[in-house]
Amino acid sequence: MPTVKRDTYTPDSLLSVAVRVFNERGYDGTSMEHLSQAAGISKSSIYHHVRGKEELLRRGISRALDGLFGVLEEPSALEGRAVERLEHVTRRTVEVLITELPYVTLLLRVRGNTGTEVWAMGRRREFDQRVAELVKEAAAEGDLRGDIDARLATRLLFGMINSIAEWYRPDRASGDGAQASGGGAGTGTSAEVAEAVVRTAFAGLRTH
Amino acid sequence: MPTVKRDTYTPDSLLSVAVRVFNERGYDGTSMEHLSQAAGISKSSIYHHVRGKEELLRRGISRALDGLFGVLEEPSALEGRAVERLEHVTRRTVEVLITELPYVTLLLRVRGNTGTEVWAMGRRREFDQRVAELVKEAAAEGDLRGDIDARLATRLLFGMINSIAEWYRPDRASGDGAQASGGGAGTGTSAEVAEAVVRTAFAGLRTH
Repeated sequence: MPTVKRDTYTPDSLLSVAVRVFNERGYDGTSMEHLSQAAGISKSSIYHHVRGKEELLRRGISRALDGLFGVLEEPSALEGRAVERLEHVTRRTVEVLITELPYVTLLLRVRGNTGTEVWAMGRRREFDQRVAELVKEAAAEGDLRGDIDARLATRLLFGMINSIAEWYRPDRASGDGAQASGGGAGTGTSAEVAEAVVRTAFAGLRTH
Repeated sequence: MPTVKRDTYTPDSLLSVAVRVFNERGYDGTSMEHLSQAAGISKSSIYHHVRGKEELLRRGISRALDGLFGVLEEPSALEGRAVERLEHVTRRTVEVLITELPYVTLLLRVRGNTGTEVWAMGRRREFDQRVAELVKEAAAEGDLRGDIDARLATRLLFGMINSIAEWYRPDRASGDGAQASGGGAGTGTSAEVAEAVVRTAFAGLRTH
């Protein structure tokens, strides 16, 4: 029989447990029973906090989206040449991804048919679209090379950014020994990784 | 009752059906019954070709690995400055990914505990490691910028490359209207996408 602890969860701490389980088992593969076991409280205690697992999904994804869309409202994302705004948004998107890693991971993995999943995918597309518009604007201002299609450039940029969710491990941020894939750890802090993404994507890895 | 067709499968055509089903349902979520339904032949007909689904997984992954490791043996991957070899390997890896899309997708998604899955993940790490060594060599030769850790650069490079498996759709190679995410289609041929990846990663998106 699992140890049942007293329910001292806040909305945030319960959400944190639920999102970890969703990321481990997949949202579809997670039952209220799994959440109850992971949280160490009864299902009825969980129902005291939320209407069900879809509400936890919506809250987890909202947290990711609030962080990401917040970036688009920052002064440096709104003023100046488009390429500067784009670099700012890229840098801050990486930082939010790392700071809110489990929540953004949940958002990136969501694929499904429930209302919440459809809504999440729509909002994610909307974010991508906003960045794609910045890419187009920067290209129109002559600051991005003309020989790469803006839509393709946006996809490659997000490819680089979103892949961070697959390998970044906060506990290895200082970069130690061997890691699961891709040639060792050496990840760095969120600011270091963000800076590396901006340099790679905009200036390139080659010395000039 | 499903229509059962005469078994005219070759090893390659049966593999192609199996890999499609693995990618749609996940390897764990695929039973011999699913494979039988998708192929339109009986389970015993499938057992006439292979010992079981793990053999189909191994064959599918071998096809991806043969393509990828083949790139490392090409003359342009073996001769010249490391940065040139690295750019060649990057370009050709993207081309193989697109040409062998279902097989490389299968390789990239594999996570599991069967012998074949552990072997696949090990071989994938080995490939990443070989590319990571090229990155280090190119950095040592002074052709890659010194302010990005080689391991991080390798991860970002693979992030960009591997993400292609998530959005590239062969039937939309010419780039038409709206697509599922990331700001429209506009994908291009394998050579065009490969060239865009090389330009972005090594020269950067900015005009100089």
